[in-house]
Amino acid sequence: MSDTASRTAILLIHCPDRRGIVAAISRFLSEHGGNIVDLDQHVDVEQGVFFMRAEWELKGFALPADGIAEAFRRQLAEPFEMTWRLHFSDERPRMALFVSRLAHCLYDLLARWQTGELAVDIPLIISNHPDLRPVAERFGIDYYHLPVTPDTKAKVERQQNDLLAEYRVDFAVLARYMQILSADFIHAWPERIINIHHSFLPAFAGARPYHAAHERGVKIIGATSHYVTEDLDAGPIIEQDVTRVTHRDAVSDLVRKGRDLEQLVLARAVWLHVQRKTLVYQNRTVVFD
Amino acid sequence: MSDTASRTAILLIHCPDRRGIVAAISRFLSEHGGNIVDLDQHVDVEQGVFFMRAEWELKGFALPADGIAEAFRRQLAEPFEMTWRLHFSDERPRMALFVSRLAHCLYDLLARWQTGELAVDIPLIISNHPDLRPVAERFGIDYYHLPVTPDTKAKVERQQNDLLAEYRVDFAVLARYMQILSADFIHAWPERIINIHHSFLPAFAGARPYHAAHERGVKIIGATSHYVTEDLDAGPIIEQDVTRVTHRDAVSDLVRKGRDLEQLVLARAVWLHVQRKTLVYQNRTVVFD
Amino acid sequence: MSDTASRTAILLIHCPDRRGIVAAISRFLSEHGGNIVDLDQHVDVEQGVFFMRAEWELKGFALPADGIAEAFRRQLAEPFEMTWRLHFSDERPRMALFVSRLAHCLYDLLARWQTGELAVDIPLIISNHPDLRPVAERFGIDYYHLPVTPDTKAKVERQQNDLLAEYRVDFAVLARYMQILSADFIHAWPERIINIHHSFLPAFAGARPYHAAHERGVKIIGATSHYVTEDLDAGPIIEQDVTRVTHRDAVSDLVRKGRDLEQLVLARAVWLHVQRKTLVYQNRTVVFD
Amino acid sequence: MSDTASRTAILLIHCPDRRGIVAAISRFLSEHGGNIVDLDQHVDVEQGVFFMRAEWELKGFALPADGIAEAFRRQLAEPFEMTWRLHFSDERPRMALFVSRLAHCLYDLLARWQTGELAVDIPLIISNHPDLRPVAERFGIDYYHLPVTPDTKAKVERQQNDLLAEYRVDFAVLARYMQILSADFIHAWPERIINIHHSFLPAFAGARPYHAAHERGVKIIGATSHYVTEDLDAGPIIEQDVTRVTHRDAVSDLVRKGRDLEQLVLARAVWLHVQRKTLVYQNRTVVFD
Repeated sequence: MSDTASRTAILLIHCPDRRGIVAAISRFLSEHGGNIVDLDQHVDVEQGVFFMRAEWELKGFALPADGIAEAFRRQLAEPFEMTWRLHFSDERPRMALFVSRLAHCLYDLLARWQTGELAVDIPLIISNHPDLRPVAERFGIDYYHLPVTPDTKAKVERQQNDLLAEYRVDFAVLARYMQILSADFIHAWPERIINIHHSFLPAFAGARPYHAAHERGVKIIGATSHYVTEDLDAGPIIEQDVTRVTHRDAVSDLVRKGRDLEQLVLARAVWLHVQRKTLVYQNRTVVFD
Repeated sequence: MSDTASRTAILLIHCPDRRGIVAAISRFLSEHGGNIVDLDQHVDVEQGVFFMRAEWELKGFALPADGIAEAFRRQLAEPFEMTWRLHFSDERPRMALFVSRLAHCLYDLLARWQTGELAVDIPLIISNHPDLRPVAERFGIDYYHLPVTPDTKAKVERQQNDLLAEYRVDFAVLARYMQILSADFIHAWPERIINIHHSFLPAFAGARPYHAAHERGVKIIGATSHYVTEDLDAGPIIEQDVTRVTHRDAVSDLVRKGRDLEQLVLARAVWLHVQRKTLVYQNRTVVFD
Repeated sequence: MSDTASRTAILLIHCPDRRGIVAAISRFLSEHGGNIVDLDQHVDVEQGVFFMRAEWELKGFALPADGIAEAFRRQLAEPFEMTWRLHFSDERPRMALFVSRLAHCLYDLLARWQTGELAVDIPLIISNHPDLRPVAERFGIDYYHLPVTPDTKAKVERQQNDLLAEYRVDFAVLARYMQILSADFIHAWPERIINIHHSFLPAFAGARPYHAAHERGVKIIGATSHYVTEDLDAGPIIEQDVTRVTHRDAVSDLVRKGRDLEQLVLARAVWLHVQRKTLVYQNRTVVFD
Repeated sequence: MSDTASRTAILLIHCPDRRGIVAAISRFLSEHGGNIVDLDQHVDVEQGVFFMRAEWELKGFALPADGIAEAFRRQLAEPFEMTWRLHFSDERPRMALFVSRLAHCLYDLLARWQTGELAVDIPLIISNHPDLRPVAERFGIDYYHLPVTPDTKAKVERQQNDLLAEYRVDFAVLARYMQILSADFIHAWPERIINIHHSFLPAFAGARPYHAAHERGVKIIGATSHYVTEDLDAGPIIEQDVTRVTHRDAVSDLVRKGRDLEQLVLARAVWLHVQRKTLVYQNRTVVFD
């Protein structure tokens, strides 16, 4: 990827594969004088699907930024039956954080936001516990303590939804939020809720994965970040990583080693999402890195 | 581990944990003038179990090699209720290989045997297919083609058992042997059959793990070597390793990348077994490395 | 390692190797009723040096905590010519942080301190730049801005030394502090200054390692945490880690990927130091993990 | 990469970057009905260089295989000042192996050749020692023992060159060949000699890298495969990998662990070369994987 700081446009595309797609897209860009800084394509031969991420400088591009979508739709998206999104590098998505009691992923994301690594705004933090309010205050972020019980769950989710709307949130990150969201809530945010699960999925889905990993005697533990879907812990995987453990590691050691994995894997997944480098197709992700 | 080539004795122990075990064992060794070259112990505090591997030079040790077991039993093993094994570094275990059609793990183990990395004898190779006979012949090893059908399985297992007895085999390695062994066969060889499974267990147990991994869209694949128990793919894990994959990898790429993992993980597990560095307890391994 | 929370004593030892050391130490512990929770020893056969870390519960130990050192000295340390240190698990070392302009390692260490992962006190942060004062204030830690020029360097180091004394600091961490400390300063803090270098040492020592790595075209980059010695970037290595890069990664990508390595590797090194798991011998570390 | 077995053409290109290159190339392919199965491009923005690897099916392509080069030269290579190579997937390059006394890399490459993973012919093995002749015989490959002394070096290199010519060799692999080739020899085989160095270059270049790594006390060791250039151990890196070591590892352990790295890294580099996935530019490689 280039060391460029100028404003760029980013296209994410998937469509039925056929000859000439790359030629058509690259002609569209070159005809208008677009200087491509990154172009990555992938063909799933088995499924017959074409995927592309193209990023080009707006400086010198003949079309005005707000005219690109319409021109692209007419000339390319419709003829090729594309599913597509257009982004600009200076968009600054608004990210909500959901947390429970564990602070490590929260601290890590806030630090990456403060140092400018994550080009997002973080307008609010929602939690089912009061514990992390001091962290939110330390970073000057609104904190909502919304306790969840089986009885109040539906009502709380409506409150959460209202908050996300009120704060004009683009996507949400479950930073070790230990509540299961309802199908209704998830449907309202397709490919816009990112979770971190503390195991190498599909191994040890569900509760207490470190206990299960210790019980099974694995020699490697992992963490998995994925988009949340209705199926618990079964959404499209964005990023995974692992680390070695031995017989000397008690469950508490797995928890400690796992924390580093969790925060790292979640941070990478959020970064990929913010950089518009992820595409979801048939419950899998195409990650353009 | 030391760069020593002199003959050593190796003790593998587990027993209920209590105060003074280390003192008693190390006194036993120092009283007889044993020069310890490696001493590794572990206490499972939760289960209250003590584990140890001790290796010491026989040169200068006051007890004769064939008198150690009896002295150890009387002075230590019985008072401390130890489960234990005594080995000598110049033992050369006899290893049988079971294969089907895939050659990579077989070649890898044979190469390690030829270069002296694996201090074993390999008297025979057993297969349910004829394909790898030329490899066996190339290395001068007897090859038995014993095809397995549901009807002949019991009879073939008796033949296999007879061969293992006839060739005085100490342990067997399933180097991508694609047949499930019966409970009876497995019971006869406790902690003496090593398998390689082509996934990061417990994820993707069973058949066609690379297809399942591709379908699930994981970002990392793995391989697992374990002692074979009655429960398919659920025996005590000796070693695991993983490698990254991306959306660009077709199933055939996972198979290719996975081969390297399989042969490496299996080779390490066999090496640990041959070096007497593994202890099994409650379906987990203690690996002294 | 055990899931125990009770108070423990920790002995770190090295001495000339001879027969009977383990027996003598373990007898010392068992005679006084010490319940060993962790015992790790290592013999450097080539150098003839014995290393040990022993941790045992003080509950039930016959010697009072403040009598252990004297008894150990008389019975063991002197006869065996040991270099040794005795620690207690409830000591809470006081850690000073030195920073320049980059915030990621600072944030990471502060988060680990806040969540209780690092059982230290952090009384002050020293910097040659004013930039990170807001971070210090956010966490309520005193911040000293001491700019360094070739002319003022000696004077500033005296100020730094006075601050470390005033705040009763036990050890210092250079969390991407971009100044070279003088030999005098370093001599005053042997094995008590931990640095993070942003390369896989000994490759790319010195300035601008990511540029050098990019120029050389390596496929893997790393980070190294080490105790600071007079020789720049040549002190005993505590921890290292690496990550893959490709031709697609510009220097700015190496910097971004490297940040995660830096903070992770530094955090692990600090944790090992705080847990009393490191021993330095002949410019190398023995890490008991 | 696709699960396709049909015959493909592969283009490797680099040229000064300018707008419209991708459009021109993809139009060339689509105009003639080429079905692209893999397209990977990279722009080095700093250097202003464009790189591409394109692979397309010959089935249905309007140009005959032997007419592609001429058409491409005229329409694209000359106007865009491209440096380029055209390959076909059914070419089977002829690979010579140079070895000394260590067998592990040799065995590993021979096994990958036998199993079909490496689509090459291996007509001969050249060695400065007689030791590995039995391995060559086992696999039915001609073996030339050409001892090298300072006095005979020039003469031996002429013999080696003659052999490579006689056996119509396309590229050579130094599989732990412990002789330094002369500049003349190397110049005759640009980007066609692949070496494996047993360290994580640029750390520990030169002789005895495992001893140097042990002496320095690193926590990770590595291996590096690179194209051979006049500068010893400084050629363009194709692949690297690493593994963890601890204070417990003697030099002999580093050697053992390193062997696995060496054979794996070398095998990957050879595979990438054979798959036409490497491009060299300014002493670095672009690896299209």
